[in-house]
Amino acid sequence: MKTTFKLIMLLLSATFLLSSCGNNNGKSSGSDGALRSSNAEKVYVAPGEHDEFYAFMSGGYSGNLTVYGLPSGRMFKEIPVFSQFPTSGYGYSEETVPMLNTSFGFVPWDDSHHPDISQTNGELDGRWIFINGNNTPRIARISLKTFETEEIIEVPNSAGNHSSSFVTENTEYVVAGTRFSIPVPQKDMPISEYKGNFKGALSFIKVDQETGRMAIKFQVLMPGFNYDLSHPGRNKSHGWFFFTTYNTEEANSLLEVNASQNDKDFIAAINWKKIEEYVNNGGGKIMPTNYAHNVYDEHSHSATSTMIKEVLTVDPTEIPGAVYLLPTPKSPHGCDVDPSGEYIIGNGKLSADLTIHSFTKMLDAIENKKFDGDAYGIPILNFEDILAGTVKSGGLGPLHTEFDDKGNAYTTFFISSEVVKWKVGTWEVIDRKPTYYSVGHLMIPGGNSRKPFGKYVVAMNKITKDRYLPTGPELEHSAQLYDITGDKMELIYDFPTHGEPHYAAAIPADLIKDNSQKIYRLDENKHPYAVTNQSDAKVTRNGNEVHISMSMIRSHFTPDNIEGIKVGDKVYFHITNLEQDFDVPHGFAMIGANTSEILVMPGQTKTILWEPKQVGVWPFYCTDFCSALHQEMQGYIRVSPKESNIDLSWSLDGE
Amino acid sequence: MKTTFKLIMLLLSATFLLSSCGNNNGKSSGSDGALRSSNAEKVYVAPGEHDEFYAFMSGGYSGNLTVYGLPSGRMFKEIPVFSQFPTSGYGYSEETVPMLNTSFGFVPWDDSHHPDISQTNGELDGRWIFINGNNTPRIARISLKTFETEEIIEVPNSAGNHSSSFVTENTEYVVAGTRFSIPVPQKDMPISEYKGNFKGALSFIKVDQETGRMAIKFQVLMPGFNYDLSHPGRNKSHGWFFFTTYNTEEANSLLEVNASQNDKDFIAAINWKKIEEYVNNGGGKIMPTNYAHNVYDEHSHSATSTMIKEVLTVDPTEIPGAVYLLPTPKSPHGCDVDPSGEYIIGNGKLSADLTIHSFTKMLDAIENKKFDGDAYGIPILNFEDILAGTVKSGGLGPLHTEFDDKGNAYTTFFISSEVVKWKVGTWEVIDRKPTYYSVGHLMIPGGNSRKPFGKYVVAMNKITKDRYLPTGPELEHSAQLYDITGDKMELIYDFPTHGEPHYAAAIPADLIKDNSQKIYRLDENKHPYAVTNQSDAKVTRNGNEVHISMSMIRSHFTPDNIEGIKVGDKVYFHITNLEQDFDVPHGFAMIGANTSEILVMPGQTKTILWEPKQVGVWPFYCTDFCSALHQEMQGYIRVSPKESNIDLSWSLDGE
Repeated sequence: MKTTFKLIMLLLSATFLLSSCGNNNGKSSGSDGALRSSNAEKVYVAPGEHDEFYAFMSGGYSGNLTVYGLPSGRMFKEIPVFSQFPTSGYGYSEETVPMLNTSFGFVPWDDSHHPDISQTNGELDGRWIFINGNNTPRIARISLKTFETEEIIEVPNSAGNHSSSFVTENTEYVVAGTRFSIPVPQKDMPISEYKGNFKGALSFIKVDQETGRMAIKFQVLMPGFNYDLSHPGRNKSHGWFFFTTYNTEEANSLLEVNASQNDKDFIAAINWKKIEEYVNNGGGKIMPTNYAHNVYDEHSHSATSTMIKEVLTVDPTEIPGAVYLLPTPKSPHGCDVDPSGEYIIGNGKLSADLTIHSFTKMLDAIENKKFDGDAYGIPILNFEDILAGTVKSGGLGPLHTEFDDKGNAYTTFFISSEVVKWKVGTWEVIDRKPTYYSVGHLMIPGGNSRKPFGKYVVAMNKITKDRYLPTGPELEHSAQLYDITGDKMELIYDFPTHGEPHYAAAIPADLIKDNSQKIYRLDENKHPYAVTNQSDAKVTRNGNEVHISMSMIRSHFTPDNIEGIKVGDKVYFHITNLEQDFDVPHGFAMIGANTSEILVMPGQTKTILWEPKQVGVWPFYCTDFCSALHQEMQGYIRVSPKESNIDLSWSLDGE
Repeated sequence: MKTTFKLIMLLLSATFLLSSCGNNNGKSSGSDGALRSSNAEKVYVAPGEHDEFYAFMSGGYSGNLTVYGLPSGRMFKEIPVFSQFPTSGYGYSEETVPMLNTSFGFVPWDDSHHPDISQTNGELDGRWIFINGNNTPRIARISLKTFETEEIIEVPNSAGNHSSSFVTENTEYVVAGTRFSIPVPQKDMPISEYKGNFKGALSFIKVDQETGRMAIKFQVLMPGFNYDLSHPGRNKSHGWFFFTTYNTEEANSLLEVNASQNDKDFIAAINWKKIEEYVNNGGGKIMPTNYAHNVYDEHSHSATSTMIKEVLTVDPTEIPGAVYLLPTPKSPHGCDVDPSGEYIIGNGKLSADLTIHSFTKMLDAIENKKFDGDAYGIPILNFEDILAGTVKSGGLGPLHTEFDDKGNAYTTFFISSEVVKWKVGTWEVIDRKPTYYSVGHLMIPGGNSRKPFGKYVVAMNKITKDRYLPTGPELEHSAQLYDITGDKMELIYDFPTHGEPHYAAAIPADLIKDNSQKIYRLDENKHPYAVTNQSDAKVTRNGNEVHISMSMIRSHFTPDNIEGIKVGDKVYFHITNLEQDFDVPHGFAMIGANTSEILVMPGQTKTILWEPKQVGVWPFYCTDFCSALHQEMQGYIRVSPKESNIDLSWSLDGE
C-alpha cells in the first residue's frame, strides 16, 4: 500500500509543478508573426460567415448543455436541461416545473456530464443529443431541431450516473451506468458492509426511433465496483458495450488510497444484444421502484411528469455469454472504441501507458473459454490473451482517447497536461502538444463514431489560472483548439467554457443547420390557455384563482389594464407570443412576483404564477427589446384588498 | 393622433425591412482577403496572450452580469446578481439566499439592465461595478476584486427600475430612477386615475467611499411620467443628473400610441447637490416604507438581509432651483453627457435627429428665468434657449450616444440599424456603418466618463437571426465590434452575448487585473461552521437538525463515511475548501437533495440543506475535476429510519 500511495503523491506533485508554469509556454506558440497570423485566420469567422461545426459541451455543475461554434469558440446558446434557468424561465414556469421532478421531489439543479449525439449506422445523424444528470441520476434528450430539452428519464438503482449517456450505433439504446454502487434496492445497512453487498446498475434505455421517447428496457446488476465511463461497440463490435471500472477493491472510505491497490481494474464488456434477447424471451426480474419520466410536448408547450413503479433487472451471472471482465491497468477513466470497432482503449489514469484490447482476440478468448477466474461469477479474461498493444506514451495520467479519419488516435494526459497523437495499429507516438492546464477530456467532431471529422481537436482543461484576464477566485474553465489536419497538432486558440464542461460532442453544421426550427406555429398551439387572437384575451376567476390569458405582439399586451385582482389571489399569467417571425421573442415581467419574469418565443405560451401580497397599482412590461416601441409595451394591474368587491375588468384596447 | 400613429407604423415597417436582409451585407465587409486577414489579427488573442479590455454586459432576463474580453469577444464569467445560479449555488446556498430577499419576499430572478463602473474625478477607478434589477427594483454592487456581488439594496416607491444604475463622478451616489410611475405610497385606486396622481421616484443612493456600502439618501418625487435613462453631469456639470422622460402624456393604456402624442417630452435636470444641501439641513419628509438591504460579508462568506422601514422623500417644487425640464424631441431613450460635461444629448427614439442641449445655455436660461411654463410646478425651459445643436443624422430611431477621446460621438439608430459617428461641436456626420440587426445600446470603454478609451465600439444588437449557426427558435443576442481608431469605423467581429445584454461598461484591463483576488484566506474565514483543519471536522445533532462541518482537500472529504442520519432530519452540510492555491475549487453533490450541489472556492465555506426522505446508503462526491484522483473523492451517508436509535458516527480517515 505504501508504494502505491507514494506513486500517487508523486503523480499529484507532478500536477502541481506542471500546472503552476506561467503562460509563456502558450505564448511561444503564437510569438512567431506569420504563424500567429495564420492561426488568427484559421479561427476567425468574419461577420456574415458561419462556423463549420456545432460543439455541444456539458455544463458540469451548471446542469445544462452549451452550444459552441468551431473554430470560433463562440457560445451560441445555453440549453437548460437539469437546472432552473432564469433566462427562459425553464424550471420556474408552470409548464416546465415538471421537467425537474424526480423520485426525490423537485430537484432545482444537477451536474451534467457527457453529451452524445444520436447515430444511424454508426454515424452522427443529428436527430437528438443526450446528456446525463450525474447527481440525481437521469438522462435527458434534447431536440436538435428546437435545441430544447424534450424529455428526462430518471434512472433508479443508480447513484452518480456517470458512465452515461452514450448511444449504440443506431441509437437503439442510450446507456447509463452508475458510478457508485449502492444497496439495490436501497436499505438501511452499515456502510462498512459495502463489500460484496452493494451493486452497480448498468441501465439500457430503449429509444423510440420515430419520437425519440425513452424507456428503460433493463438494468444489469453488476458487482459493487465504481463504473466510470463507457462506450458502445461499433461496426464489428456492434452489440457490445464497454464500461471502465475502478475501486474493484470495493473500498468505502479513503478511496484515494484504498481504491488504488489493485494493479489492474476491469473493463466490463456487456453483450447487450444477448441480454436483449434474454429479456425479450421473458428473462429478468421485475423490481418495484419509483422513478420519474418527464416529457415536454411542443404543441401544448407543457411538460408532464409520470412516476414509474417498476424496472426490469437482470443478473448477469444467469445469462451465459452476456458479460466478461477485461483486466485493464489501474483505475481506468475513459473507455474508448476506435471507428473500426476492433480496438477498445482503456485509459488507466494512474498508469503511464495506454492499454488497447482487441475485440477479435476477446471473442477468441471467450470462445476458447480462456478465463482467469471470475468476479462474483463473471468471467475474467486473461490480460495477455486480449491485448492488442500498448502505447508507450511517456505521458502521465491518460484519460480519454478520440479518433480522426486517418487512422490516428489522440489521448489526453491529465497529469502531464498534454495531448498525445498516436497511430492506431502500430501504437507509435506521432506527436505531443502541451495543454494549459490539466486536461480532462478531449473531443473530435464525430470522434465517437464510425466516421470522425478529423479537422480539430478540442482539449477541455480543468485548470484555467492565467489563460485569461483574471476574474477573482472563481474562473471559467478553459478549452483549447488544435488544428489536426497536418502531421503535427497546432494549438490555434484558447476559449473559456461556461460551467464545467466535462465532455463534448460535435457535428458538422451542414448536417443539422437547415433543419433548425425557426418559430412555433401558432396554429399548432394546443396550450389550454393559449390566445391565438388578441380578441380572445380574457381574465377569468375561479374562487381565488385568476387566469389571465394574455397576448403579446409588437408592441402591445392584451389586456394592458386589469382590475379586480385581490390580495391573496393566485394569479396565473398565461402569456402567448402572437409573433410568427423568426427571432421576435417577447418577455413579461410582473414586479415582485415569485416567478415574475418569462421569455416567450413566437407562437409559444408560458405560464407564471403571481401571488400579490400588497394592494396597489403594479406595472408589467416586456423584457425583450422587441421593437422601437418596446419601452411602451407595458400595462398595469390593480390589486385591491382581499375583502374588496371590485369585479374583474380589463381593457382590450390593443385590438 | 392618426399622423403620429402612421409615422410609428412606418418606422416599424422600416425595422422589419432592414432586419430581414440576409447576412451578405455582413460578408461584404470581410470578403476582401487582405481586409479579412487584418480584421482576423485585430480580434485574435493568441494562446498565452490577454485581452486589452474587460467588458461588463448586463444579462437582461438572466438577471446577471457577464464579463467579456475585448477584442476577442470571449465570455470570462457570468456573475450571479439578481438570480439563482446553479453553477455556484448562489441564491440556493444558505449563505446566499438572503441576497435575493426583498419586501415582496424571496425573488428568484430578475431583469438586469445597466452596469456602471465606479469613478473618481470622473474617470473609471475600477473599485466596483453597479447594476440595476429592473423588475423588482434594486441596485447591486459587485466587487471588481472578487467579481462577486457584495450588496443589493431594494428601491422603494419604484417600479421598473430602469433609469439606473449610474454613478456621479466621484461615486458619491449611484442613482436609480423608476421607469413606471405608481401611487406613492402604493394604494388601491383605479388605473384610469393615473394622470396627475401617480408619481415617479428618482432615488439617490449614497456610496460609502471606504466600504462601498449603499444607503438611500433621498428620493425625488417627480410627476407621473415614465423615466427611461439617465446620466450624471461631469466636469463642469458635476452636481447635476439628467433623466429622459417619455409618456409625459401620462397615458395608462395602449402606450405605443397614446404615449407618442407630444412632439416633445423632457429631459429632467436634477441639481442633486442643491437637494443634498436641502436634506442635510433637515429638508424632506420621512415616509414609512419597507425595503431590503442585503450585504454579503467576505469573511463569514454569508449574507444578511435587513428590512429598512423608512425613506426620505423630497418634493422638488419645494426646493427652488432643484429641478428643471428640458424639452426634447419625442420619447427620448438614451440621455448622454459628453466628456466635457457641456453637452446633454437626448436620443429621441421616434425622431430622426439628435438634439443636443447646452449646459451653459441651460444655466443662463435658469439664471434669466426664461421658462416656458411648468409641469406640476417644475419649470420648463425653452427648447431654443438651451439648444446647442442638432445632428442631422439621416438615421431613424436614435437610442444611445457614447464618446471617444478625440471629440467624436457615436450614436446607435435602432430603426435604421446603424451606428453614426459625428463630431461634437460641429454636429457633422463623419461616418455611418450598418449593424446586424436593430442595434439597441452601444459601448465605448470609459465612454460614460471624462476619459474614454476610444479604440473600440461595441454595438449590442437586438435581433440575431442569421448571424450565427441557428439554434432553434431561441437565439442568443449578438454584439458587433468596430475598430474606431481610424476616421471610418471598421466592423471587425460578431460575437454572441449571453442573456439579453441591454447595456455595457468596459475598462482597460491594466486598471484592474493586478488587483484581482486569487483565493479566500482560510485564516480569515469567520464562517461559524468553518473547518480550517481536517481534524476539526465533525457532525453534531440538535433535535432533528444535524450539522456536518466537512472539509475538502485534494482528494478527500472529511468525514467521508457518516452514519446516524435519520429520515426527517434537516441535514446541513457546511463545506469548507481547505485549498489555498488559486483556481482549485472543489464541489459537493448529495444525491436527490433539494439544494444538492455546490461549488466552493479555496478558503470558502458554503452550506446546503438536505432533508433525506428515504432510508439507504447514499453517496456524495466532488463535482469539480480537481485532481488525478478526483473520481476517488467521494463518501457515503447512511440514512436510517426515523425511529432508529443509531448514534451519529463518522470517519476522519483522511487526517
